[in-house]
Amino acid sequence: QSSVTLYGRVNTTVEYEDVDGTSGSTTGLKSSGSFIGFKGTEDLGNGLTASFVLEREVDATTGASTGFERETHVALSGGFGTVKLGNYNSTAYTYTADWISLHNHDVGSSADKLFAYPVTNTSKIGYRTPSLGGLVLEVGYGFEDNHGNDSPYDLSATYQAGALDLGFGFAKWNDWEAYTLRALYTTGPFTLGGYVQYDDDSEISTRYGDRFSARLAGAYTVGNSEFHLNVGWADDYENLSDSAAVQYTLAYNYNLSKRTKLYGFYTGLESDNGAVYGNNPGKDSSTIAVGIRHLF
Amino acid sequence: QSSVTLYGRVNTTVEYEDVDGTSGSTTGLKSSGSFIGFKGTEDLGNGLTASFVLEREVDATTGASTGFERETHVALSGGFGTVKLGNYNSTAYTYTADWISLHNHDVGSSADKLFAYPVTNTSKIGYRTPSLGGLVLEVGYGFEDNHGNDSPYDLSATYQAGALDLGFGFAKWNDWEAYTLRALYTTGPFTLGGYVQYDDDSEISTRYGDRFSARLAGAYTVGNSEFHLNVGWADDYENLSDSAAVQYTLAYNYNLSKRTKLYGFYTGLESDNGAVYGNNPGKDSSTIAVGIRHLF
Amino acid sequence: QSSVTLYGRVNTTVEYEDVDGTSGSTTGLKSSGSFIGFKGTEDLGNGLTASFVLEREVDATTGASTGFERETHVALSGGFGTVKLGNYNSTAYTYTADWISLHNHDVGSSADKLFAYPVTNTSKIGYRTPSLGGLVLEVGYGFEDNHGNDSPYDLSATYQAGALDLGFGFAKWNDWEAYTLRALYTTGPFTLGGYVQYDDDSEISTRYGDRFSARLAGAYTVGNSEFHLNVGWADDYENLSDSAAVQYTLAYNYNLSKRTKLYGFYTGLESDNGAVYGNNPGKDSSTIAVGIRHLF
Repeated sequence: QSSVTLYGRVNTTVEYEDVDGTSGSTTGLKSSGSFIGFKGTEDLGNGLTASFVLEREVDATTGASTGFERETHVALSGGFGTVKLGNYNSTAYTYTADWISLHNHDVGSSADKLFAYPVTNTSKIGYRTPSLGGLVLEVGYGFEDNHGNDSPYDLSATYQAGALDLGFGFAKWNDWEAYTLRALYTTGPFTLGGYVQYDDDSEISTRYGDRFSARLAGAYTVGNSEFHLNVGWADDYENLSDSAAVQYTLAYNYNLSKRTKLYGFYTGLESDNGAVYGNNPGKDSSTIAVGIRHLF
Repeated sequence: QSSVTLYGRVNTTVEYEDVDGTSGSTTGLKSSGSFIGFKGTEDLGNGLTASFVLEREVDATTGASTGFERETHVALSGGFGTVKLGNYNSTAYTYTADWISLHNHDVGSSADKLFAYPVTNTSKIGYRTPSLGGLVLEVGYGFEDNHGNDSPYDLSATYQAGALDLGFGFAKWNDWEAYTLRALYTTGPFTLGGYVQYDDDSEISTRYGDRFSARLAGAYTVGNSEFHLNVGWADDYENLSDSAAVQYTLAYNYNLSKRTKLYGFYTGLESDNGAVYGNNPGKDSSTIAVGIRHLF
Repeated sequence: QSSVTLYGRVNTTVEYEDVDGTSGSTTGLKSSGSFIGFKGTEDLGNGLTASFVLEREVDATTGASTGFERETHVALSGGFGTVKLGNYNSTAYTYTADWISLHNHDVGSSADKLFAYPVTNTSKIGYRTPSLGGLVLEVGYGFEDNHGNDSPYDLSATYQAGALDLGFGFAKWNDWEAYTLRALYTTGPFTLGGYVQYDDDSEISTRYGDRFSARLAGAYTVGNSEFHLNVGWADDYENLSDSAAVQYTLAYNYNLSKRTKLYGFYTGLESDNGAVYGNNPGKDSSTIAVGIRHLF
């Protein structure tokens, strides 16, 4: 008999978006990172575990969905750590930008638009250490024959010290590399997180050179309510003048249960004329959203 | 642990189809509204319930299937009624034409070809009242920015009075509107239903003007057997001469269980030369089918 | 409540492939016949059973997946045998080539490249007899209106006599036909199988004429280890000079459990210049693979 767990998320919002320098605004329904997944683990004895994950994105407003591109892997875990094969997020992202996206899982209109993500997710082999006194390392590697002519790879290091949770990520593909340092601290009802990223593609003539960016995220929880604020900033790219940007989100979540919340947010992206972020590069835009997120 | 229900329908027939004025007939396998679905509900306490549905059509003869376009929604229910966001059938259809399609869920070759369905299903927000002394109202609305430049909307009213079950539907999009009145009556082994529809697109110069149509459906149940007859009629469109049509179906279902039935039907569509219904507009066609429908 | 079983396979390898006469070799991740399936049976009483299967292939390295083209059917079984409608493998293949593919389910780089498979899987109706004293017959038939202008059909016969398991397959579509005789014998830790195939498309001017082929497969099991060797051979096609080929695989499986194994294999295809098999027809190629297969 199978021991597959079926799970997922339906996350739907009504959003009002205004983009400077375009005629009018738009109001409509949006799906934000909705998906359905299948996963399972098998105890192999001797401390060994086999596991798998298959996840597919679903547009909750239309039903549109292709394959299991969201995540697909098989893994073997034991005292030695975990070996994982397949398609999954960059570990350099998971333990940095994603880790401090406290208000809405880094999906939809308020997702981090400034984070540099040099690698691809597909056809990867990874290894994750067991906890080495609180330190955990993970590497991911793609064979170059699966990825054009260059191997993408990434690395993360995480360290837990009481209420302080630290993470580092490095990712590189085709001479584009990014280094990120992240911290998260919890005290009472407050959670505070942030990262600093150095993004360097200066060896690629068609790209923009190097750049620093940073993000701060704070949350305050009281009863079923969560109040969130986060601000991201990206400096000018070395070879791209007037390309800085600031992104900020103010959000409120009301948890009807652990699985279901109602929420609203205001998110804005202020871009200099030469910036390359979001759907309307170089333009300022802002969005007001109210929605429901249901985990199953 | 998840509480997702996996369900669906495999509905496959062998069909012989004859179309007047074409060379020969065809015999082959057909899939009629086969699908697989995932749904779940969560009790939030205080009389509140969250729920979701993800359903995807599957061609049971080839396996072809795209996304969850059949139905995708998330809903919140309580004493105030139900608020629903996503992609689902027009309520003006669900409680009229679909409600009296007694023999085979309004799918496949014997589906209602004459019913006017002005709206789209995607990116909709809906509200359904609780029962107001037997009366239930439901509205659906799509933001115009999601749907070209016009908001689709629909409305239904249903009322239960003992054995008599009444429904009304209104739907409108882009100046095309349709009004439908439906009744269903059960007495002993007999079920009798019918609807009358007024379809009006006369404000759209590229369409056909207004028209009346109607359908009658009867069922007689004895033991595991069901005998079905339904007849639909559409008048000429105001601006489309010789465009009337009659559709009729004679069907027999043998229920092997509540979930599985063997069935057969004869369905015909008699079209005037200018009619616009079915796969062979303006031609008469008829189909004989035998099949199996299995719910899971 | 539904009684659907969710099951599948994630089968991922790291493979090194070398093709003669091309520049260099390739190393990369591969998915070999990974899939997810949904199936169920319903006891209808009186010895009758309804059942269904929906299976979809998933590329375990990228998540890519289309519909349920791997297998989709609904069936009714009883004392009379089984009637099956939908999309599924040719019975002439299932009980011959597939039956002796002992080391890795006839998927991926070491799959049988020489077996002739004249028919399509879609839109088929089949009948399988009950056991007639150990003999079981199965036929599959596709209506010509579903399949161009010619009906594909296939047939299998299987017979179990103690440790000896015999199978025969015949398949025909568009004047291409193939006859296969298969045997499998188990004694202690040894399993030995083989088939001989006669493939004839000589009535089709654009094809190659007739040809004999054969395959032998042996397995030795000790504890959690399995050692496999199989060799296939195809003679020259009648009208295609220098078109013979030999395919061989040496494989080792280590079963971590009934569901999960680690494995490795070396597989080679030696093709004469005019041969038509594999991804590099007429060239010699070989692959070394190590991987994990997890059933769920």
